[in-house]
Amino acid sequence: MTIADRWLLPEGVEDILPPAAERIETLRSNLLGLYQTWGFDQVMPPMMEYIESLLTGAGHDLDTQTFKVTDQLNGRLMGIRADITPQVARIDAHSLAREGVSRFCYAGQVLHTKAANIMDTRNPIQLGAELYGHAGVESDFEIISLMIESLGASGIDNVTLDLGHVGVFRQLMIKAGLDKDLETQLFDILARKALPELELFVPAHFKNQSLGEAVRQMAYVCGGPEIIPSIRELVAPLSADAVEAVDELNQLVSRITARYPKVKLYMDLSELRGYNYHTGMVFAAYKTGGSQPLASGGRYDETGKVFGRARPATGFSLNLLKVADASELTVETRKVILAPNSDGEGLYEFIKQLRSDGHRVIRQLADSDVENSDAVIDQKDGQWCVVDRND
Amino acid sequence: MTIADRWLLPEGVEDILPPAAERIETLRSNLLGLYQTWGFDQVMPPMMEYIESLLTGAGHDLDTQTFKVTDQLNGRLMGIRADITPQVARIDAHSLAREGVSRFCYAGQVLHTKAANIMDTRNPIQLGAELYGHAGVESDFEIISLMIESLGASGIDNVTLDLGHVGVFRQLMIKAGLDKDLETQLFDILARKALPELELFVPAHFKNQSLGEAVRQMAYVCGGPEIIPSIRELVAPLSADAVEAVDELNQLVSRITARYPKVKLYMDLSELRGYNYHTGMVFAAYKTGGSQPLASGGRYDETGKVFGRARPATGFSLNLLKVADASELTVETRKVILAPNSDGEGLYEFIKQLRSDGHRVIRQLADSDVENSDAVIDQKDGQWCVVDRND
Repeated sequence: MTIADRWLLPEGVEDILPPAAERIETLRSNLLGLYQTWGFDQVMPPMMEYIESLLTGAGHDLDTQTFKVTDQLNGRLMGIRADITPQVARIDAHSLAREGVSRFCYAGQVLHTKAANIMDTRNPIQLGAELYGHAGVESDFEIISLMIESLGASGIDNVTLDLGHVGVFRQLMIKAGLDKDLETQLFDILARKALPELELFVPAHFKNQSLGEAVRQMAYVCGGPEIIPSIRELVAPLSADAVEAVDELNQLVSRITARYPKVKLYMDLSELRGYNYHTGMVFAAYKTGGSQPLASGGRYDETGKVFGRARPATGFSLNLLKVADASELTVETRKVILAPNSDGEGLYEFIKQLRSDGHRVIRQLADSDVENSDAVIDQKDGQWCVVDRND
Repeated sequence: MTIADRWLLPEGVEDILPPAAERIETLRSNLLGLYQTWGFDQVMPPMMEYIESLLTGAGHDLDTQTFKVTDQLNGRLMGIRADITPQVARIDAHSLAREGVSRFCYAGQVLHTKAANIMDTRNPIQLGAELYGHAGVESDFEIISLMIESLGASGIDNVTLDLGHVGVFRQLMIKAGLDKDLETQLFDILARKALPELELFVPAHFKNQSLGEAVRQMAYVCGGPEIIPSIRELVAPLSADAVEAVDELNQLVSRITARYPKVKLYMDLSELRGYNYHTGMVFAAYKTGGSQPLASGGRYDETGKVFGRARPATGFSLNLLKVADASELTVETRKVILAPNSDGEGLYEFIKQLRSDGHRVIRQLADSDVENSDAVIDQKDGQWCVVDRND
């Protein structure tokens, strides 16, 4: 292998260099600080776990996204985490099995075997917040609020929120009684928004025509909150439970519009991202005009079950690298002050004070070119002081 | 697999739970802040890389400590990093090939196939700082100072510093001309401090008796800075280069004692940790009385060579989990203020203000037990205010 090859990084794997790294660190610390003030306790799950814990209730996608390694101590299979949410579910179910409402937040790196999209990283930094032990719309609202304010705190104010509720579709599917293969086929069609295929699928496989028509129409009816009444009308004759789900969505929409009037809302009931594990509201936040979500989440009331403690849960996570890219926040670059190469009396104390006041002080090293700086430390009348380079 | 099994974590792999996680996050952020004020630019290398880059110049230990995975995109072998230092060397050599002095710092998780010691984690959080492009004692002194002040900033004031200089031993070995196998055998004996074995090894393999005697004595002569003259005397007739290394060590000691008079110094010239890649000064910091180093580092002037740019380099890294364990810093737990479940006018603005002032405000959710808190938000004369629970 030649020298040139050694520094090549794998596809979808990057160094984050200055000043981007400092900016990302600042956002990370701002967001974790925000979650603390909302009462979310930070947890730090490990980078790797036995595969059975890592992949619980998460479906096939996460499995293929997870790097597997063998534990040399006992030959068991471990995974490098591709998602932190199942780890937090494990913590809620076991490590910190508190009664009542629990709020957790986290920040950490994850690894993916393949990037979700061609331009994506395989090494995202994931931040998120999860709320366990409450089943109502209010906890979804708390999580969505925190998601919106996370973007706000990162300098992203023009937010579009995609909202759905997998309960509506799930209830219709229960009524339809399609077999598992057909159901999977239908999800696939909806996920690809392959409307021509849908037009063929529905008449071929739905015995109940009005049910089929409702499913078909749900793929077309999306837009602002004004579409909610027509969805309600569509499902009202078919399933009382589906109506209940629509009403929950409606309540959530009223609250969001009241608190965040500037946030654009977009309803899409055929958006079934995470249908395998989500059980209620699902949401994703975009920078208005952006094509990829910056943050997303939803309700997943059954995840803790495999750990012996199913609790209602709702949460969101965000990809910090994408948020940083979209962020308009400017992180001030600190001036560099150059200290002379001297053991002069009081100089180190002077430097120490400057640093503890947050200044950035570099010490000139002997036998080395004079380093770049905005200011230098000099001595005037026996006192150390900072002098701008321009003076 | 039963439910009970699913939450079992692999040996040496732990969750970090509240309040420990917040404490570790605070230390992380304090230390990175400190490095910024010293002019060290943060870099974030990826969690995984091709194995050739990850293991450069690091020797066999790092290889066996590194988990290997296959890149599904091209079948090449990648490693999950077990150490961040070689990644920073790659960044200095290639990604950010600056002229002159470069200062970098980093923080991140690493994974080890096996724990270094029985009680150690296999998932440490590594923080560190590296200085490239300067070869003198001054840059070692800057790095050691930052290492000592890192512990100080983490509430660890009673520090013992182990100091060595692999140059002394290396120069003697050049003179001795032992073959590679014997040299490795000797290192192994010295690493285990197996003095009886050393007594047999030296007369058997050293042709030059005074050289053998010097090597033998170096394993016995360790202690405070007062031993430096006797080491100098020992090597003076044998190698001028070894004397130079001893003199460098002596300069470093004078500087450290002048700036940090409270730090205890311990010299051990037969301490050859990292002899494979270190080329000069080596150092490790202990909490006085502790048996395991909290931070360690040294000079490694050749590391960038495999990336096409060998530059003088010195740096240290610390294990944040060990530092947090040893830390006497108390992170203040914030009071929890409970907001009522109400849509009352101005309540959300009031909560928002409290949060942006750094208070921790939890919102009571409907149909849920009243949450624990230190204070509650209440209304008095139409104004929202915070009332202590004790009042």
